[in-house]
Amino acid sequence: MNIIIDVMSGDNAPDEILKGAFLALEEYGHSITLVGKNEIINRYTYENGFDISRGEISVVNADDVITMEDDPFAIKNKKDSSMTVALKLLADSKGDALVSAGNTAALYTGGVIYASRIKGLRKAALATFLPFEKPLLLIDAGANIAVNEDILEQFAVMGSVYVSRMLGIEAPRVGLLNNGTEHTKGNDILRSAHKRLTKNTKINFIGNTEAKSLPYGVCDVLVTDGFSGNIVLKLTEGLCGYMFKKLKDIYAKNPVTKLSGAIIRPELKEMKKVFNASEYGGAPLLGVSRPIIKAHGSSDATAIKNAVRVAAAYCEYDIIAEIAKLT
Amino acid sequence: MNIIIDVMSGDNAPDEILKGAFLALEEYGHSITLVGKNEIINRYTYENGFDISRGEISVVNADDVITMEDDPFAIKNKKDSSMTVALKLLADSKGDALVSAGNTAALYTGGVIYASRIKGLRKAALATFLPFEKPLLLIDAGANIAVNEDILEQFAVMGSVYVSRMLGIEAPRVGLLNNGTEHTKGNDILRSAHKRLTKNTKINFIGNTEAKSLPYGVCDVLVTDGFSGNIVLKLTEGLCGYMFKKLKDIYAKNPVTKLSGAIIRPELKEMKKVFNASEYGGAPLLGVSRPIIKAHGSSDATAIKNAVRVAAAYCEYDIIAEIAKLT
Repeated sequence: MNIIIDVMSGDNAPDEILKGAFLALEEYGHSITLVGKNEIINRYTYENGFDISRGEISVVNADDVITMEDDPFAIKNKKDSSMTVALKLLADSKGDALVSAGNTAALYTGGVIYASRIKGLRKAALATFLPFEKPLLLIDAGANIAVNEDILEQFAVMGSVYVSRMLGIEAPRVGLLNNGTEHTKGNDILRSAHKRLTKNTKINFIGNTEAKSLPYGVCDVLVTDGFSGNIVLKLTEGLCGYMFKKLKDIYAKNPVTKLSGAIIRPELKEMKKVFNASEYGGAPLLGVSRPIIKAHGSSDATAIKNAVRVAAAYCEYDIIAEIAKLT
Repeated sequence: MNIIIDVMSGDNAPDEILKGAFLALEEYGHSITLVGKNEIINRYTYENGFDISRGEISVVNADDVITMEDDPFAIKNKKDSSMTVALKLLADSKGDALVSAGNTAALYTGGVIYASRIKGLRKAALATFLPFEKPLLLIDAGANIAVNEDILEQFAVMGSVYVSRMLGIEAPRVGLLNNGTEHTKGNDILRSAHKRLTKNTKINFIGNTEAKSLPYGVCDVLVTDGFSGNIVLKLTEGLCGYMFKKLKDIYAKNPVTKLSGAIIRPELKEMKKVFNASEYGGAPLLGVSRPIIKAHGSSDATAIKNAVRVAAAYCEYDIIAEIAKLT
């Protein structure tokens, strides 16, 4: 398996991306295609003792980079950006999957343009695991603000396939995000989607799901429009960060409170790990015909390593073929 | 001031509602009109040594009750429910403000029917304080799923007036909930609302606000549609509860971790208090012509006491007149 890695995009690019790529190579054995400025990649590999004449490492030059501030059309305007070059390699089957920690909107736009939507699918989605005890796949996490019942139904199927293959869950429970559990809740689209999902035999639909119950593992896949999904994602991030900060402030108060923190340091570390989405290895674009993983913008080497692992699995488990069959 | 209290609605009615009502009477001095089954109220007051011949206490009988499972039209169908009777008293100026811990949708519907919308306002809203360090008023918290830029602008003005008067903040910062801070974010309605709020000289608009930043006090009023608002409210509740539960599990592990919890028990108690929305005394209906406070369904006596205090202030600070002037 060959994973194409956009080396130049992301807050900690290129160093952490390169470090993560090589960690993945060592640990998982997939060959890697590094896309970015030749001289930067070559200097890194030389300085860190990696031998790029090894068959498992390819380097493809790209002199430009799409920044986080660029609008999504940079994917077309900056033809020589590492992200665009990487996507073209993927589209030309010069690699099996792609990982980028760059501009999400640009990667999504590029994914749809270069990898193209799976036939029959109305919209590609950005899906991401919410960092709770049991992984919860949120789809759509922010790509599609406007949806209808067709689109929501397709999100449900795609999310169900992804979770089933990636996590080995036989019949992932699919919930529809709503303001209450009664089937009458929400707007017309949600009521319509509720009927569709109830009738759809390809998924294990558990009904409307309230935001309050999400941390408690009530479902494995949460279906919603991109606006609501993005709020769920961002609020979870903000609230978890805030609560850990409040705890940290308490521990910093005096030596006695500091002791309190020290006693449960391993447990707190474990708890923080649960809330760290990067453990799940990035967000898949679902609905495009080639595997693309969006790693968090602030990904460090470990997060990139995990993203490469997940990108390989996305490919290995034939998820795209399965989605194409069911939609 | 006379506060009308729906005694029979809520998970802990009637005892905790009555207890809270009398706590409020003792502490704040406002007279109270207790609406519910005569015999229940009379028995409670007798058993607890209250003298209902005192001028400050009135009792109005209502034999029926709207349950949490009833649909909102119960407000008309159950004419003799404590909530409906209470609303009619308010509409007839037999009291200055109303407090109910009952069915939110029914109270909202009844508020609009009996108290009627302020002239010129398109929609009444349910507003509630999010339990962060600095109080953040969320408007709309779940009453209006469908909105447009007019409605969002009116929410902004109402929320701003409420926070300004109730919290004494001179120019409350108003944020518009969106998927990013750039003015181009969101759908057409949000882009349009952004323009309106920017031009509106009656409010201190700080721009689009991401969910991630909400706990950090970036704004005093958060404007959004009822669907998104309800997700923010419920997810906050769910996540905070979940994190406290995780901490509790850690402390329960063994005597050593238990010590960790014991050391910072006062600080944790304080932290829990911050996250306890009932400290803010309930959610106001904004945009109706009489003051109505919706107390949390699970309100205990303290929460009811706080709700009565807030209902009185809602009246005293002439918030309705101020809203009517500005919209």
